[in-house]
Amino acid sequence: MDRLDAIFAPETIAVIGVSTQKGKVGHDIFANILSGGYTGTLYPVNPNAKSVSSVKCYASITAIPDPIDLAMIILPPKAALHAVEDCIAKGVKGMVIVSAGFKEVGGEGAKIEKEIKALCETAKIRLVGPNCLGVINPSPKVSLNASFSARMPAPGNVSFISQSGALCTAVLDYAADKGFGFSKFISIGNKADVDELDLLRYYYNDPDTDVVMIYMEELSRGAEEFISEVREMTSGTNPTHVIAIKSGSSTAGAKAAASHTGALAGSDALYDAIFTMSGILRCVSVNQLFDYAQAFAANKYPTGDKIAIITNAGGPGIIATDMSEQSGLKLAQFSEETIKELKKYLPPTANFYNPVDVIGDAAKDRYENTLATVLGDRSVDAVLIILTPQSMTDAIGTAEAIVNIARNTLKPIVCAFMGVVDVSDGVKLLQKHKIPVYQFPESAARSLGALREGMKWASRKILPQFNLTYDTATAKKIIDQYLKEGRMVLGELDGNKILQCYGFNTLPMELSKNKTEACKIADQMGYPVVMKIVSPDILHKTDAGGVMVGLEDSKGVEQAFETIMEKAKAYNPDAHIEGILIQKLAPKGKEVILGLSKDPVFGHAVMFGLGGIFVEVYKDVAFRLSPMGRNVARRMVKSVKGYPILKGLRGEKASDIETLEKHIVSLKAMADNHPMIKELDINPLFVHEEGEGATVADILIQLEN
Amino acid sequence: MDRLDAIFAPETIAVIGVSTQKGKVGHDIFANILSGGYTGTLYPVNPNAKSVSSVKCYASITAIPDPIDLAMIILPPKAALHAVEDCIAKGVKGMVIVSAGFKEVGGEGAKIEKEIKALCETAKIRLVGPNCLGVINPSPKVSLNASFSARMPAPGNVSFISQSGALCTAVLDYAADKGFGFSKFISIGNKADVDELDLLRYYYNDPDTDVVMIYMEELSRGAEEFISEVREMTSGTNPTHVIAIKSGSSTAGAKAAASHTGALAGSDALYDAIFTMSGILRCVSVNQLFDYAQAFAANKYPTGDKIAIITNAGGPGIIATDMSEQSGLKLAQFSEETIKELKKYLPPTANFYNPVDVIGDAAKDRYENTLATVLGDRSVDAVLIILTPQSMTDAIGTAEAIVNIARNTLKPIVCAFMGVVDVSDGVKLLQKHKIPVYQFPESAARSLGALREGMKWASRKILPQFNLTYDTATAKKIIDQYLKEGRMVLGELDGNKILQCYGFNTLPMELSKNKTEACKIADQMGYPVVMKIVSPDILHKTDAGGVMVGLEDSKGVEQAFETIMEKAKAYNPDAHIEGILIQKLAPKGKEVILGLSKDPVFGHAVMFGLGGIFVEVYKDVAFRLSPMGRNVARRMVKSVKGYPILKGLRGEKASDIETLEKHIVSLKAMADNHPMIKELDINPLFVHEEGEGATVADILIQLEN
Repeated sequence: MDRLDAIFAPETIAVIGVSTQKGKVGHDIFANILSGGYTGTLYPVNPNAKSVSSVKCYASITAIPDPIDLAMIILPPKAALHAVEDCIAKGVKGMVIVSAGFKEVGGEGAKIEKEIKALCETAKIRLVGPNCLGVINPSPKVSLNASFSARMPAPGNVSFISQSGALCTAVLDYAADKGFGFSKFISIGNKADVDELDLLRYYYNDPDTDVVMIYMEELSRGAEEFISEVREMTSGTNPTHVIAIKSGSSTAGAKAAASHTGALAGSDALYDAIFTMSGILRCVSVNQLFDYAQAFAANKYPTGDKIAIITNAGGPGIIATDMSEQSGLKLAQFSEETIKELKKYLPPTANFYNPVDVIGDAAKDRYENTLATVLGDRSVDAVLIILTPQSMTDAIGTAEAIVNIARNTLKPIVCAFMGVVDVSDGVKLLQKHKIPVYQFPESAARSLGALREGMKWASRKILPQFNLTYDTATAKKIIDQYLKEGRMVLGELDGNKILQCYGFNTLPMELSKNKTEACKIADQMGYPVVMKIVSPDILHKTDAGGVMVGLEDSKGVEQAFETIMEKAKAYNPDAHIEGILIQKLAPKGKEVILGLSKDPVFGHAVMFGLGGIFVEVYKDVAFRLSPMGRNVARRMVKSVKGYPILKGLRGEKASDIETLEKHIVSLKAMADNHPMIKELDINPLFVHEEGEGATVADILIQLEN
Repeated sequence: MDRLDAIFAPETIAVIGVSTQKGKVGHDIFANILSGGYTGTLYPVNPNAKSVSSVKCYASITAIPDPIDLAMIILPPKAALHAVEDCIAKGVKGMVIVSAGFKEVGGEGAKIEKEIKALCETAKIRLVGPNCLGVINPSPKVSLNASFSARMPAPGNVSFISQSGALCTAVLDYAADKGFGFSKFISIGNKADVDELDLLRYYYNDPDTDVVMIYMEELSRGAEEFISEVREMTSGTNPTHVIAIKSGSSTAGAKAAASHTGALAGSDALYDAIFTMSGILRCVSVNQLFDYAQAFAANKYPTGDKIAIITNAGGPGIIATDMSEQSGLKLAQFSEETIKELKKYLPPTANFYNPVDVIGDAAKDRYENTLATVLGDRSVDAVLIILTPQSMTDAIGTAEAIVNIARNTLKPIVCAFMGVVDVSDGVKLLQKHKIPVYQFPESAARSLGALREGMKWASRKILPQFNLTYDTATAKKIIDQYLKEGRMVLGELDGNKILQCYGFNTLPMELSKNKTEACKIADQMGYPVVMKIVSPDILHKTDAGGVMVGLEDSKGVEQAFETIMEKAKAYNPDAHIEGILIQKLAPKGKEVILGLSKDPVFGHAVMFGLGGIFVEVYKDVAFRLSPMGRNVARRMVKSVKGYPILKGLRGEKASDIETLEKHIVSLKAMADNHPMIKELDINPLFVHEEGEGATVADILIQLEN
């Protein structure tokens, strides 16, 4: 028995801190379990009451004569701590602490939460909460509503994980209105023990769960473990699809999240990375979360991106076409046979091409024939059906026909039954048979696009990893020397040496102390050259006027030496200047940026983007965390909007993308091998034509102890 | 009396083509007017029936003994044409043709529609349709439901215009479910006569209409007239706010729209221009359309972008914060007095800073006190209230408190009452009192952002126009000469001359026929120079290898001459080559693109974007139509994502944006003065530093007859 079974399907429950007073959480949770028809046995614990809702009360959990699977604790922090000790003594298998006043308020509350967490770890008891709504399992085998929401949802194949308790009540209410069913429903609050990954593991193995919805405020465990496991769950032939909404995406939102949960909120770009790498679809609103969940819950996936649209009204058909295209889908081109067949059943004024317009006076039969016909077309991977209520419209009959046909096809069918009252019977029938149905065609099209995206992810091609070796020892020696001397910034010379250890191609360069040296070096190196100030006190060389490019002869070098020195002194009169670096001009290539930054929560992230203004104005960058590998690097490079620039525009040759991918993998390896690297910026890296590699043109590394 | 009054508020109506058979449109429309409680007098017309729904039938409209304001015609095209003739003879003031089979099917139907249109024009009778749902006016003074939807909406201050009839029934159904009221509701179908602008004019003068919702498939009249009038309606201190959804935004969608309405669908970018220039907020879904309409219908607008959020749950507060920031709003920073006041009423565990968390166990009083307090803070321009249903939550009480406080403030208040069943009483009360209320905080925040955007538009600063003069005569002479000779492509030499007539700064240039000439010209001009092939058969010079940049001396020019000639001949062996243009290298500046293109529906559009890859990969361009002017040009330049590049990044000096604005205005003037310009591309234009102007580096003009 998985230890989380004690929480989702306990045979006995003790409610500790039960209250006889209606409206109090301690009363309502007990009453909700009772009225929810829980199939196990329920024991209220309250030393000051004889009975609650006619059920005999016990003075303490240890006074209960039978073994207890799950303890629900509704008590303030200090009392909760004692109750936890009692529960451990009693030998319970799982606990849910509903009450608030712990980590989220800091101080004493946070301290007690830590103690409770430690006690549970030692006793190997799983704990949900504190500061949560509770647990719901609508399966008739269990029928458990251990929550302070009076509403028990219908059973279904979607499970829900929410960090926010308050959102749960609203979601349950919304779900009830939509006839939406759940497999398991849990609010995890402060996540002292059980968190999203624990639950995803459980849900992945749960035969009753096909789809997981998550409302996340922050991920409090290591991202690598989370990503490594979740990307397996969301892949393959029998994936568990995970869709999530993550709040705190804006700067102000992240601040609000931090004050709310008392947890460090990582940068939103890193959450994008975590979701993308895990194969989790990120939603922007609760509505979208439900829209997608409904689509995935039907368990049918398009094997291609071609859809057919059937409608009884032109306008909504156009809206659906628009949104389909925006969602990465295309309209299928029907075969001649399909069109011939459609002409048999549809009136001459109908549109036989995609989107098929069965015309406003269509009753059930036209929908039925058209649906069967387009499903039979090999070029059609999925069907979107639009029904608008008009005089002859038969919403219930059409729904019946759809249900019958859907039974015999693996191709997904989604519907938009527009309206509320006029079509409600049809909508209910579709919902009952798990045919996704939406109020408007744009939601239906977008959800179909999400299905396709999920399918593409699950069946993505996995390439063998690169076989790369590094000179870790040399790199370590350089870094250790810096740390020993208390120097935290590596300039270009040493930065380049480290990059060379990791397979990067750097430019010949040498430090000059004066004009004469500069000219001598440049003459030997060959023109044109680049000159850059070297000073531990000037990090942003360009801003200080400390960089000059494309010097063609020794006269130019001489003048440039003077200019750079003057500007550097003007920029920072106290700067210690080591000299000026003479560097060979980089061969041509596409300018990209590669970088590393260390997030206090998630560790090192690799950054990649097109260089210059693309990063600065268009924010066209991507981040990735561990686990890094060839596939992650490839998807990362492809994910930026400027990717076509690397592929080559207007007959231009493609850039060496494979080398870029290798460099991304190597950078992450460098971060893993030398965790004292706080920040690294290769800006720019020139990526040459295919097969020609890439050249580092500038590097800055910052260390930390 | 406005002639549209006959359609929205007739005193007498004849229904021509009425049917005694239930389910037929001719029956249902009549029955709907009757059961809708129409306050005027209704006359059914059918030569074959004695009465319909107990009302005496007339054999023809001319047989009716009383004058008729509005004729509703439900007849196939040929019969409809005869009915129209009868109506004109009878002297009706307005007509609605509901039936389909006209322009949208082409052939005979399209011909008859044209005839009917001409008849109405001559008789000065306004016509709605054909191919439409009808007209609804829920005002108790009229109570007219002349549509084939059985549902009469509640009265309200939002009017609706739909090109699609089918969408109307769904929208009415949806509105009924949301308790949403309408002032006027009309479906305009093929728009043979009455179209969006006619209705906007009517609604603008209608004291019962504050907000207009439009569902548009295409705009069939001139954009200039539309924009000029609508931007006035949406501006000033008493604007009519217009929100619209336009289908056909994707390529496939536009194709579907064309086949559906038989109309030419202009490019979607031009619709963006039309909406932006008119001050119409464009929505992406019907849900959003309703969300925004609800917010605008409350008639309160934020005078700044600072909002306060009040919530009884942390998670939704974060979601609202996120979406507010994404919608262009900021969280207000409360004054010390506000925080002191909040601490009086709220428990110590509450969050007194924005977003204010009144904590899960908040009843009505905490919401009431908090709302009153934050509204009193001068830094707060609007308030967003979130209520999640929890044990102590008093949805109806809180709603009452909000309604009472809202009466005494001009600051907008929007609510998110999360859930459906648990909060429905409160939601209904808010809706009754026109307080915008949403199911989820993201919709509330987005709608508040839309309110702010509408307010900013209505009160935008209008700058005086530029005073520019052009040498139209010289430009005309050049163009006429080309047209006379049947030449349709102007090269750089003549293109530059035309640009000069319109105040553009061009580069010295001269055509060379051979190497010797080339060197001589370059020597006189001064180095560096650019060389470009000149051939009427080579339009895309760069693709043909016909451009070389930055030649430093005569030797370089000589070599370049040979190279360009060779490549041009390889590119197109049959090309007639006039020579090679020697041009002075343009002084430095930011690379932008300016262009003109002629849309078959909307005429000339000006295009502006950042040059090079920004246009090609990031599609960072904007289009504008007539009426062009300084304000339009300014907003156009600001609208591209790359605008910060022109403003100057990292302490860089700003570019000469005013010159750019003048050039945009001048280009449009050029298009107006010389409509035979089919396409014009200035690519690139180098915009120099502020006050330094801009220089054309390349120009191509195509003409048409």
